Amino acid sequence: MNLSELKNRFSVKELDEIKVFTDNEEYTGIILPSTNEKTLTLKLKSGYNIGVGTERITKIEKTGEIKKEIPAEEKKIMQIDGLPLISILNTGGTIASRVDYRTGAVSPALEQEKLISNIPELMEIANIKTKIIEEMFSENMRFFNYKKIAEEIEKEIKENNPKGIIIGHGTDTMHYTSAALSFMLEGINIPVILVGSQRSSDRGSSDAAMNLICATEFISRTDFAGIGLCMHESSSDDNCVILSGTKSRKMHSSRRDAFKSINDVPIARINFESKKITYLKTDYQRKKEETELALKEKMEEKTVLIKLYPNFHSKQLEFYEKENYKGIVLEGTGLGHASIGTKAQGTEENGKLFEAIKKLSEKAVVVMASQAFFGRINMNVYSTGKDLLNAGVIPAEDMTPETAFIKLAWLLGNYSKEETKKLITKNLRGEITERSDIRGFKVD
Amino acid sequence: MNLSELKNRFSVKELDEIKVFTDNEEYTGIILPSTNEKTLTLKLKSGYNIGVGTERITKIEKTGEIKKEIPAEEKKIMQIDGLPLISILNTGGTIASRVDYRTGAVSPALEQEKLISNIPELMEIANIKTKIIEEMFSENMRFFNYKKIAEEIEKEIKENNPKGIIIGHGTDTMHYTSAALSFMLEGINIPVILVGSQRSSDRGSSDAAMNLICATEFISRTDFAGIGLCMHESSSDDNCVILSGTKSRKMHSSRRDAFKSINDVPIARINFESKKITYLKTDYQRKKEETELALKEKMEEKTVLIKLYPNFHSKQLEFYEKENYKGIVLEGTGLGHASIGTKAQGTEENGKLFEAIKKLSEKAVVVMASQAFFGRINMNVYSTGKDLLNAGVIPAEDMTPETAFIKLAWLLGNYSKEETKKLITKNLRGEITERSDIRGFKVD
Repeated sequence: MNLSELKNRFSVKELDEIKVFTDNEEYTGIILPSTNEKTLTLKLKSGYNIGVGTERITKIEKTGEIKKEIPAEEKKIMQIDGLPLISILNTGGTIASRVDYRTGAVSPALEQEKLISNIPELMEIANIKTKIIEEMFSENMRFFNYKKIAEEIEKEIKENNPKGIIIGHGTDTMHYTSAALSFMLEGINIPVILVGSQRSSDRGSSDAAMNLICATEFISRTDFAGIGLCMHESSSDDNCVILSGTKSRKMHSSRRDAFKSINDVPIARINFESKKITYLKTDYQRKKEETELALKEKMEEKTVLIKLYPNFHSKQLEFYEKENYKGIVLEGTGLGHASIGTKAQGTEENGKLFEAIKKLSEKAVVVMASQAFFGRINMNVYSTGKDLLNAGVIPAEDMTPETAFIKLAWLLGNYSKEETKKLITKNLRGEITERSDIRGFKVD
Repeated sequence: MNLSELKNRFSVKELDEIKVFTDNEEYTGIILPSTNEKTLTLKLKSGYNIGVGTERITKIEKTGEIKKEIPAEEKKIMQIDGLPLISILNTGGTIASRVDYRTGAVSPALEQEKLISNIPELMEIANIKTKIIEEMFSENMRFFNYKKIAEEIEKEIKENNPKGIIIGHGTDTMHYTSAALSFMLEGINIPVILVGSQRSSDRGSSDAAMNLICATEFISRTDFAGIGLCMHESSSDDNCVILSGTKSRKMHSSRRDAFKSINDVPIARINFESKKITYLKTDYQRKKEETELALKEKMEEKTVLIKLYPNFHSKQLEFYEKENYKGIVLEGTGLGHASIGTKAQGTEENGKLFEAIKKLSEKAVVVMASQAFFGRINMNVYSTGKDLLNAGVIPAEDMTPETAFIKLAWLLGNYSKEETKKLITKNLRGEITERSDIRGFKVD
């Protein structure tokens, strides 16, 4: 029997709370939308989704149903005395997405009440207040979106004084946004945790519920203050990690453990079963007695990130000098190198890239990061690195190119060019660490 | 006693073969240049370098010395009947570098005989023939250098018929060169292994000797044919790995295990102690009975690799359309996305990037790879991805952006635009795999 026939036979529909029986098993949960007629997808009370093959199903009992719209009175009842207040500000992304049945593609569409109804555990950990501030794919985020999110965070803190804030966010550029918020929200004294998911909520393998539950558990009990990310630690559903907002990167296009800490240890691990929080970074930023939130939300539009590679043409850089760009992050090779050698004999490129970089750094702030991502920039090892330093290029230390780009745009938006040159190599938000060299990685 | 005083007292100098005595130990090796007056650096017979604190040294005995120039007759003697011939073609880089004592920086300077004298084990594995074809930092490599290396490989095979070839290469862009050689040397029937080192030979922690020995051992006994890389598998000196020329990437600026296999398993592991070769990839390319080497060395100069990021300006892409570029690899976010949404209200960017990409792909071949590196491009999941597909953008599957860039330039150099569009998504040299999704990585 296929799914539609099953639903008809037992008079159940999407979002009904049901009991499903097979020959040897029994599941209780909520019926989620399914794209496949051979599988009944069920949201279990644990927050997990499971798929049950329709052929195996012997009986379905309806035990209740979820209303699409929770009435205002009912929402009030959910506020329990003694639980901390946690605000969820949603910007869109897979964590709040659903399949568009017309095109078959996933499109962002937040139904806040549904999200909460699907994860009832959240209400046992904290009083949850939700707000939609954007409904967008994260790849479309621009500087003015960062500004808007930062302003909404400040407003939420002033109006409601939550224990912490969760930002629902698409994963594509979540690490860029977390870096931007880290710099913009100077002196923030609560945890602001960006949460995404790599699989949408209507898929059995969705990580949305577990990531949200872990972030809520973390916020309700931590003394961490600042910007973090909460995602799966491995491809199984055992642990989530809280990663630093300035030291993280999306390193896989589809795996649920796509986000990795780069040149730093994660802040903490949350075990999903026991809810135990283990701090992995000893010197993480803690809440302070007295601190003032200063919103510094300006960012210099004329800032760019340029990846270098073999056969790069110097006119690709000259363009930015002509267009009067103010900040340039070069994503160089290895320890921070560019093709500035004099070995381009026989081509018109001979020595030209060095001249272009030198000319750029007279007008703009030029920063060097590494396309190797792991490890530190060190332009003192090789003669080509030294030449770049002499031309005015500033090393990004152990910052990722993405964090260096966001930081440079932010510095140029809020400080003078000379101050920017000094501050870019100073650690302001945990973006530069001393011990990055001890971190490596294994492929498995 | 410091190093200079020690050398004077025992009448020894750099490159002398010596025995060093401490209270409880004894070492035999060759004195290497040292940058530090408190340490005597010794190249041991095992290929390892060690540093001995000068304070601990009680006696030094000179047992021989290495001639800077090995006479032609002596080289002849090193050819042992029954051992395979392996050719080392050197292009420069750290593996052949020394410290410039004037500037303190490392500069490439190949002294081939010294390299061989420092690693006498090589002569026991194979008859080694060496040639310097470049002396350059790898960050300066351009398409015409790839062409030169490919031509030298073809010449070496025709003239000397070696069992395999080692290419000494700087590590910064070694994965770009290995990809280029993979495509250029169609039908190659011997192993061509690029070998680099992350620490120069005059440092105690140099990986040069071990990487060269492992590559030589591998070539002398393998049935693999094609382009590979040989580098440390971990930060200890236990194993080297042979990585695919099209599926690798430098992922750390300084660690000796910087090179990782991306979306594929390594071809083989070589244990340095036992010299045992373990094949990790079951379906690696093997030598064939009948095959013809066809050198296809042309590459399209007007090919670029452009990393996308939040707040990217459409005019940055329009530049490439105006300049009549022929091949564009976009390094997008996640599954292969660009900021083409209509959420840029209030800025002049609204929808412009999509128009720029669409216009570009009418004239040029536009390919999408992911800045997440691990995982596969899938533009069918989200509506923005589908829009890009409709605009003519071609997914790079599970190729790294670097391999996609090299492949696109090579295809456009050797095939028509229409053929290029078809071949870019076809697996030609192991650059596209079916099972990339099972590979992830851990940070430790």
